[in-house]
Amino acid sequence: MKIGFLGPEGTFSQEAALRYAKDMGLKGELVSFLSISDMFYGVRDLVIDEAVVPIENSIEGAVSETLDMLAGDVDLKIGGEKIIGIRQNLMAKEGTQLKDIREIYTHPQPLGQCRKFLKENLPHAQINIVYSTAKASAIVAQERDNKGIASIGAACAAQVYGLKILKGNIQDNKSNYTRFVIIRTDDSKISGKDKTSIVFSTRDKPGSLYAILEIFNLWDINMTRIESRPAKKELGKYIFFVDLEGHREDDDLKDALKMVKRKTTFYKLLGSYGRREGEDYE
Amino acid sequence: MKIGFLGPEGTFSQEAALRYAKDMGLKGELVSFLSISDMFYGVRDLVIDEAVVPIENSIEGAVSETLDMLAGDVDLKIGGEKIIGIRQNLMAKEGTQLKDIREIYTHPQPLGQCRKFLKENLPHAQINIVYSTAKASAIVAQERDNKGIASIGAACAAQVYGLKILKGNIQDNKSNYTRFVIIRTDDSKISGKDKTSIVFSTRDKPGSLYAILEIFNLWDINMTRIESRPAKKELGKYIFFVDLEGHREDDDLKDALKMVKRKTTFYKLLGSYGRREGEDYE
Repeated sequence: MKIGFLGPEGTFSQEAALRYAKDMGLKGELVSFLSISDMFYGVRDLVIDEAVVPIENSIEGAVSETLDMLAGDVDLKIGGEKIIGIRQNLMAKEGTQLKDIREIYTHPQPLGQCRKFLKENLPHAQINIVYSTAKASAIVAQERDNKGIASIGAACAAQVYGLKILKGNIQDNKSNYTRFVIIRTDDSKISGKDKTSIVFSTRDKPGSLYAILEIFNLWDINMTRIESRPAKKELGKYIFFVDLEGHREDDDLKDALKMVKRKTTFYKLLGSYGRREGEDYE
Repeated sequence: MKIGFLGPEGTFSQEAALRYAKDMGLKGELVSFLSISDMFYGVRDLVIDEAVVPIENSIEGAVSETLDMLAGDVDLKIGGEKIIGIRQNLMAKEGTQLKDIREIYTHPQPLGQCRKFLKENLPHAQINIVYSTAKASAIVAQERDNKGIASIGAACAAQVYGLKILKGNIQDNKSNYTRFVIIRTDDSKISGKDKTSIVFSTRDKPGSLYAILEIFNLWDINMTRIESRPAKKELGKYIFFVDLEGHREDDDLKDALKMVKRKTTFYKLLGSYGRREGEDYE
């Protein structure tokens, strides 16, 4: 069993993949990928069996690249989800103190999550943006004269790169969670507590999105999420990602989705899978 | 008259601000700001009269920071919109040729817009991410030994930093537009071709978003856009940004918005302003 995650090592994506594998009692190998799209291609080309892909964060919102890959030509399914709490940490080499920090390496997402902490504690530090939080910690670990340099990221990065956590849990908002979806060639069987994800575009006339939501209302289907992305054809045209309660094989949802397919210009079923709720968060 | 834009000089934001000022016959000074939130504070504190702020791109989608500032505590209005075509350019110092390029400086947004061009023409070039496309061109201009270094960004950056355009119009998708909104203390009077923007959150029960869209349907009001952002309280809670055809003082829209306010747990009118359509794009 090979499970892909967004590398390098020491990121929240690795943490999510590890916890997901543990939940499911999966034994096997975690494989690091350079980008979200590479993970999708990895599953498509059977290089890995599954990929654990970030889809939304409770503060920063949707992960556009994941949505665009899901809507695209690669025919893969969402087979599950995993939600983890995001706890950011300020990390530096042994011997460094908070007051020494002049320069910080991090990724735009943790940066957006720690604005208040930085403004209050390190207002004059120079911020350097890199591709991932792990890369940031790697840079701090490699620098020779680095008493004034710190990184922000997942705690596991401190372990991987031999840094010390100067201050933990520094994100502004303590209810910071990221939802990951499990990308596979097939979705999941009915569990009794399921969710179904679809993506569609509506006809080009007034009230067409309303007409689709009316279908869910008619069959008493609860929509837990709606997210729009540009259709990339012209400004003002969108595609919609919708999550619904229930499994695509439930009678009502089956009938409703048949109607959605009929009333949309583009429709793709992304999959049905077990639904995680508050009590499942870690 | 002082108009703010997202600096530094030589970005599409400056281009949008210049064109907006020209459209409106406004004489005055363009003021460069370091961030989107700083522009909002600038208008609030009367440092500038208006700010030209990016809100969505036809490929990359919504600009989260703008949406979050609009939904936040700063009580400002959208008083207009301006849409411009985004044309990316590969720029380098005089004497550099396409085949020499080993390293590219750019911002994540143009990078996302030129993936295909880079894959086909410069697959091995090292990509360095910086805060803005103008900063990228400034770095290229400052480097001494820079025969192999290029930047990607707005054509006006080549002029500002004395670079040569190696290749123009390199974005993958030629229908690439960015919509900017004009942030002011007041919105605009009825023009007869208007749009109204609101943001709200729905009650925490199934079908509550549908119930709001039902109001627009009841009064025959056309919704041109819906965008969700995290409510930042917990995962799975959202706020919705909706654009509607018409002015907030039109009888029907006035009645409909009164009802929306009654049926939502959070509601903020973002303003009414003249609507731009396809023929207005540049």
